Amino acid sequence: MPEDPESLLRAMFDAARKAADPAACVPPHLPKPPKGRTVVVGAGKAAASMAQAVERNWAGAIEGLVVTRYGHAVPCERIAVVEASHPVPDAAGERAAAQILERVRGLGPDDLVLCLISGGGSALLSLPAPDLTLADKQAVNQALLRSGANIAEMNCVRKHLSAIKGGRLAAAVAPARLVSLLISDVPGDDPAVIASGPTVPDPTTFADARAVVEKYRIELPPAVARRLRDSGDETPKPGDAVFANTQTVMVATPQMALEAAAKVARQAGIAPLILGDAIEGEAREVATVMAGVARQVRRHNQPAKAPCVLLSGGETTVTVRGRGRGGRNAEFLTALAVVLDGAEAIYALAADTDGIDGSEDNAGALLAPQSLARAAARGVSAKAALANNDGYGFFQAAGGLVTTGPTLTNVNDFRAILIL
Amino acid sequence: MPEDPESLLRAMFDAARKAADPAACVPPHLPKPPKGRTVVVGAGKAAASMAQAVERNWAGAIEGLVVTRYGHAVPCERIAVVEASHPVPDAAGERAAAQILERVRGLGPDDLVLCLISGGGSALLSLPAPDLTLADKQAVNQALLRSGANIAEMNCVRKHLSAIKGGRLAAAVAPARLVSLLISDVPGDDPAVIASGPTVPDPTTFADARAVVEKYRIELPPAVARRLRDSGDETPKPGDAVFANTQTVMVATPQMALEAAAKVARQAGIAPLILGDAIEGEAREVATVMAGVARQVRRHNQPAKAPCVLLSGGETTVTVRGRGRGGRNAEFLTALAVVLDGAEAIYALAADTDGIDGSEDNAGALLAPQSLARAAARGVSAKAALANNDGYGFFQAAGGLVTTGPTLTNVNDFRAILIL
Repeated sequence: MPEDPESLLRAMFDAARKAADPAACVPPHLPKPPKGRTVVVGAGKAAASMAQAVERNWAGAIEGLVVTRYGHAVPCERIAVVEASHPVPDAAGERAAAQILERVRGLGPDDLVLCLISGGGSALLSLPAPDLTLADKQAVNQALLRSGANIAEMNCVRKHLSAIKGGRLAAAVAPARLVSLLISDVPGDDPAVIASGPTVPDPTTFADARAVVEKYRIELPPAVARRLRDSGDETPKPGDAVFANTQTVMVATPQMALEAAAKVARQAGIAPLILGDAIEGEAREVATVMAGVARQVRRHNQPAKAPCVLLSGGETTVTVRGRGRGGRNAEFLTALAVVLDGAEAIYALAADTDGIDGSEDNAGALLAPQSLARAAARGVSAKAALANNDGYGFFQAAGGLVTTGPTLTNVNDFRAILIL
Repeated sequence: MPEDPESLLRAMFDAARKAADPAACVPPHLPKPPKGRTVVVGAGKAAASMAQAVERNWAGAIEGLVVTRYGHAVPCERIAVVEASHPVPDAAGERAAAQILERVRGLGPDDLVLCLISGGGSALLSLPAPDLTLADKQAVNQALLRSGANIAEMNCVRKHLSAIKGGRLAAAVAPARLVSLLISDVPGDDPAVIASGPTVPDPTTFADARAVVEKYRIELPPAVARRLRDSGDETPKPGDAVFANTQTVMVATPQMALEAAAKVARQAGIAPLILGDAIEGEAREVATVMAGVARQVRRHNQPAKAPCVLLSGGETTVTVRGRGRGGRNAEFLTALAVVLDGAEAIYALAADTDGIDGSEDNAGALLAPQSLARAAARGVSAKAALANNDGYGFFQAAGGLVTTGPTLTNVNDFRAILIL
């Protein structure tokens, strides 16, 4: 076990990333090869690395096609990898989605479809219903984002405009066996939400979609209005026969990553306390609250007794007001540095499990009690860096940037505050 | 024990308030009457109610003077109660401070001074050093607030411009015995911070005060600059003889209030988890984080297993953008309502222990799973109310305003999220 606090935090982050690494998390969940054919399909930022993990651990013939984000392809020998646009869908994604439907249609009960789903799959697997165009869907999407509708309401409308989401991929696969392997990056890990649930039942209806449109007075392109009003082509519902031979497995979630880090902590004699796998909020405010909890540990041995580590996941947000560099994790840590003000024996690591915090080359950073003084010695103030949203600049000066390179997976952010 | 969740939350808040009520928390800490005279002095929003608690529980002769905020006086028979301005000091406070120093000077070793200190005491007990005017001190105070100096730095300067703070009251009391009873409303409960520590040693020096002025390039009135440069009149330091016969007792703190609520929870079979007695941050963001923790309880039995209650104290802030009514606790709960979105079996109470949330007549409010629907039935949306900073309006519509009237004490906010 690592002895020093910084190495321990890095070991916890490594364990969290490994828990979400397709090479590690996909193989244990692979089913037995079927009598018939095995077709791999999938979409998401981790789709190619998941496909590679399948290929390398599959005994027998395998074929298929997955779609991932531009820059996220990895070499596969038997499964085709297509790159497409995210977060705004493009024609490449649309073609890939159509090809995926073609590849699974006409399979029989002895065949197996492995569907590899991860974050970003919704945009990458965008195929309008036959009576709609991509432009129609995009127009509705923009209107939904502006409307104030919540994510469940937006997904309800989207699923009813798609040829592949809301369980329609499962409908195309039947009567073949379908096993979906999912990596979750959404709060709640609901398979109906990840990539808009192409392989799971959709409990929502056209009537629900119309209610959302009315509630938020959303203006619709004529073809969309017609479809919502007239189409009898309902999404597959819970209990439908198309799901009789399907199985959905979460192979990696934010919680699993946090649990892996917790295990490393426990082995080092540090009590882990997981505060939440989906903590949201403005990064600097989340830091203020977490600092308050860390101080409670120090002063009152609550909610846990030191030595302990406060673990959390989820995605914070940053309202950009300055011109600095760095992502939400560097911002979180810079705010934590300001509030903790060099507090003794408190260390923290925050990083994105996808390996990229914002648009810089770092996954995140590591804060130590000495960080403030180290940065100050180079003329950099944490307060000023925070005011300028320059978390990257702060940790460049203070030391402690954490670099992993892109991990080709994503279970959101990893935050650990170690109180010794 | 109360059976229903709303009564249980109210019982927890009642217990928290009672723990900070001078009538309950002062008497157990009263020393034995001395051979000689007993003089009561004090300052703060709770000073009058503390003085009343002393009078009602004191066997023997007693005299004295305390200064409290306008509107915070209560009837006392033997201790004079003076009202003065807070947060901006006025001449009434200055006169009271001078009278307090007069009353304690010339006492002997057989006499006892009881000093009753609570939040707000710093502004109420404002007496400039002999070479300064109130205007000088006010000018420096304004400059400090603008400078970016932290609270410790500001207090260092203030103490070196005062005739009563930074231990100088203790110096005036010696050689009489001094017992200070404190109600804390500051993070960390440092007696040197509450009311700028009139009765405890000041570890900071004139040199420290000059360093703060230089660091933030604060422009000083000439008399202040002269005093900081030339005065040899240093504040009393730790170990000084004037503290030989002094004792400082925290009679109420935010933590004690939370512990009292925790006890009520435990007796009802609910596991209490105190997340922090000094949680700060923008109210709506703190709500977002707390909602994340509540969901972790529900989904993963972490950091505690339901039924449990997440307790926290401290003061949140509200950046006002709308034109609605209500204080930070109503804002916190309205944001919590939005994020939790009617989540089953989660209830919350947030209120100010001083009995006034912002400038309305309520101490806080109580959120239930049905609150959203109840407000919606009256045409009030939680989202819209939050956007307009109208937490009071939301709970007027939803029901659940919690009213206590002014409590004449203050250990900051009380927040409880009950997860069944």
